[in-house]
Amino acid sequence: MESKPEFESKALSTTKPTNAMAPTSQLDPSKLTITLTDTPIPLPPEQSGSTKIHTDHILLINWTSAHGWSTPKIQPYTNLSLPPTASTLHYATSCFEGLKLYRGYDGALRLFRPLENCRRLLDSARRAALPEFDPEALLQLVRALCRVDGPRWLPDDDTARGECLYIRPTIMGIDADLGCHVPSEVLLYVLMTHAPKFPATQMANGMKLLVSSELQVRSWLGGSGAAKVSANYGPTLVAFGEAQRKGYDQVLWLFGPERKVTEAGGANFFVIWRRKDGGLEMVTAGLESGLILPGVTRRSIVELARRRFGETREWSVDGKAVVAEKMDVVERDFTIHEIGEAAEEERLLEAFAVGTAVAVTPVSRIDVEDRSISVQLDATPHRKLLSAWMSDIVYGRMESEWTEVVEV
Amino acid sequence: MESKPEFESKALSTTKPTNAMAPTSQLDPSKLTITLTDTPIPLPPEQSGSTKIHTDHILLINWTSAHGWSTPKIQPYTNLSLPPTASTLHYATSCFEGLKLYRGYDGALRLFRPLENCRRLLDSARRAALPEFDPEALLQLVRALCRVDGPRWLPDDDTARGECLYIRPTIMGIDADLGCHVPSEVLLYVLMTHAPKFPATQMANGMKLLVSSELQVRSWLGGSGAAKVSANYGPTLVAFGEAQRKGYDQVLWLFGPERKVTEAGGANFFVIWRRKDGGLEMVTAGLESGLILPGVTRRSIVELARRRFGETREWSVDGKAVVAEKMDVVERDFTIHEIGEAAEEERLLEAFAVGTAVAVTPVSRIDVEDRSISVQLDATPHRKLLSAWMSDIVYGRMESEWTEVVEV
Repeated sequence: MESKPEFESKALSTTKPTNAMAPTSQLDPSKLTITLTDTPIPLPPEQSGSTKIHTDHILLINWTSAHGWSTPKIQPYTNLSLPPTASTLHYATSCFEGLKLYRGYDGALRLFRPLENCRRLLDSARRAALPEFDPEALLQLVRALCRVDGPRWLPDDDTARGECLYIRPTIMGIDADLGCHVPSEVLLYVLMTHAPKFPATQMANGMKLLVSSELQVRSWLGGSGAAKVSANYGPTLVAFGEAQRKGYDQVLWLFGPERKVTEAGGANFFVIWRRKDGGLEMVTAGLESGLILPGVTRRSIVELARRRFGETREWSVDGKAVVAEKMDVVERDFTIHEIGEAAEEERLLEAFAVGTAVAVTPVSRIDVEDRSISVQLDATPHRKLLSAWMSDIVYGRMESEWTEVVEV
Repeated sequence: MESKPEFESKALSTTKPTNAMAPTSQLDPSKLTITLTDTPIPLPPEQSGSTKIHTDHILLINWTSAHGWSTPKIQPYTNLSLPPTASTLHYATSCFEGLKLYRGYDGALRLFRPLENCRRLLDSARRAALPEFDPEALLQLVRALCRVDGPRWLPDDDTARGECLYIRPTIMGIDADLGCHVPSEVLLYVLMTHAPKFPATQMANGMKLLVSSELQVRSWLGGSGAAKVSANYGPTLVAFGEAQRKGYDQVLWLFGPERKVTEAGGANFFVIWRRKDGGLEMVTAGLESGLILPGVTRRSIVELARRRFGETREWSVDGKAVVAEKMDVVERDFTIHEIGEAAEEERLLEAFAVGTAVAVTPVSRIDVEDRSISVQLDATPHRKLLSAWMSDIVYGRMESEWTEVVEV
């Protein structure tokens, strides 16, 4: 039993705990035990980008309503032994996060705004009736896992500079009871896998999106669309599978009779268009509705664009000077009809999806039932600049308060 | 690779397969292998009703998109070894069923409309982008598991007559890949646990329900509320946990600005009231909206009531003669306001929840934000008759085409 003053943080005290039971143990990174593998996995010849390939170790922490969080441990990667009646297998009592560990061109290992991911995991845990924890404590444990597996899996040489690993924290209810209730036994784990290259190159020619039909709805007012809970994903796969079979890369999820634009697959979605008054504008859906995930990349793109495109000025991309016009950045509800109208009037300039997995990926086509909207690539320098800056930040070519170096 | 003509059933041919890959192996009960345990689990002294207590064996079948369904096997009950990256742990790619094995007062083991559950599992699998199977083939395998564990866990003596086991078929995606896509590796399993007594006795004084707030939505138009997918459950637990802490037994889920009544927790919900024209009516939400689960007990209650309450006549309950008035049975959208109005005008006679787990359980109170609606118990004989008939059917005291005896 420990009481650490930093757990009285603002983030934790604003919401009533879902599993209020005191005093129980808090998540305590100072108690971490590390058991290293005797049989390291042979490294693949190169970064495959496949999230099937995991690293050597896994971080595991148990929680029970009676005792709170157990001693965290990093141990050799292993399958999980779960009772067939485990809560999450039947009732989707789980949530997760996605972030990346980057090997910079300067040789350093970096995390990008990792506290944001740990905080969002706490928000998701609350939405899934899973136990609370201190996001700072989780971040310390994530750093520890990065120190264990980062150096070998992202070696400090030409094979890995500019590459990254994907980090997946997960929390799930594991009560061995078919009763459908708030979990009283929980497992938190963090693993790392290979990750697609950042920024994504396979999509350089643009993603093709198919809009969801009015009979396919990803999230709802009063639902869980704003949390990264497992339950948001499975029910989307029928529509995604259909879109894939038709040759599309993702579904562009619309909402409501107005057909508001929400997310592109699991990524946030942006357009750049010229307003009817002639002004240049970047738009993405707002967070007020609770329909979309408050993406860390989304927020970063919005913040970067607001900071840098407040006035027309010259920038350098790939060694070439480009002038980026002043651009307004707006978070608001917008509809597929507005996109269609902008395309018709030749005001639609760019569309792109952003997220930890896809980075900043251009969209080249959006198909609605009765029409196909073509989107230009590189009609503005803005998207390309944002993408380049994000890459420069995570790989240490641009100083930023958003990254932290993982000291090995 | 086998092609069995019975798989060309109507049920399978009406919908385009989600995982269309041919020719792959179909689910084939004739290939079942059974390995019995050497160390049977000590039986608890009596039926506990706890779904934490599982029987000795489990039925397991794997599926891959390349090869189809593997050889089914019944083996000693065991934990599942899952990769930490397994699809269902992150994306809730799973669905399940609930049915029961009853030990009749005549000594026979019975299943109640089990093909309905197997068909609904297929519907749920389609909604979850999981592979298709022949429901009849699954039913044969369920029967086999009942034959293996039924005799010992529901002995043919006074300790178990009138008791039942809960049967839980489950299908889940187990691809070891963090990519969010239609699963290409799947596990189907069936297990059995102890089950609450049927009809439920602990709720004889009636459940207390708290209606969901307008900010809490269980399912939505275009969502997955009509399928028994895992994703429908986890996101409801915050509201359920809050209701429990306030002393309620379940949440009565409402939908939309009209506040339509949908489900009571995971059970279907009925009211009996007197219409303004004086006629007696039983109402439950219709299935057209896709918001609620098409319950097997729901359907059975509707069918029983339509068959038997078409005219006023005398019935016997617990040896006593009662007259049950002619009652109309209506499946339609109805609202919490209609229930409130009926209560105010003293037309509300009964409310009850029905499902495999709760059987037919009366509701004694429904609390809306600003008011508490008291519901009488036994203001009509109809609910009690329906409950008694359902019990008589499953325990073999009443002949019915809805039950089948499991021959041991």
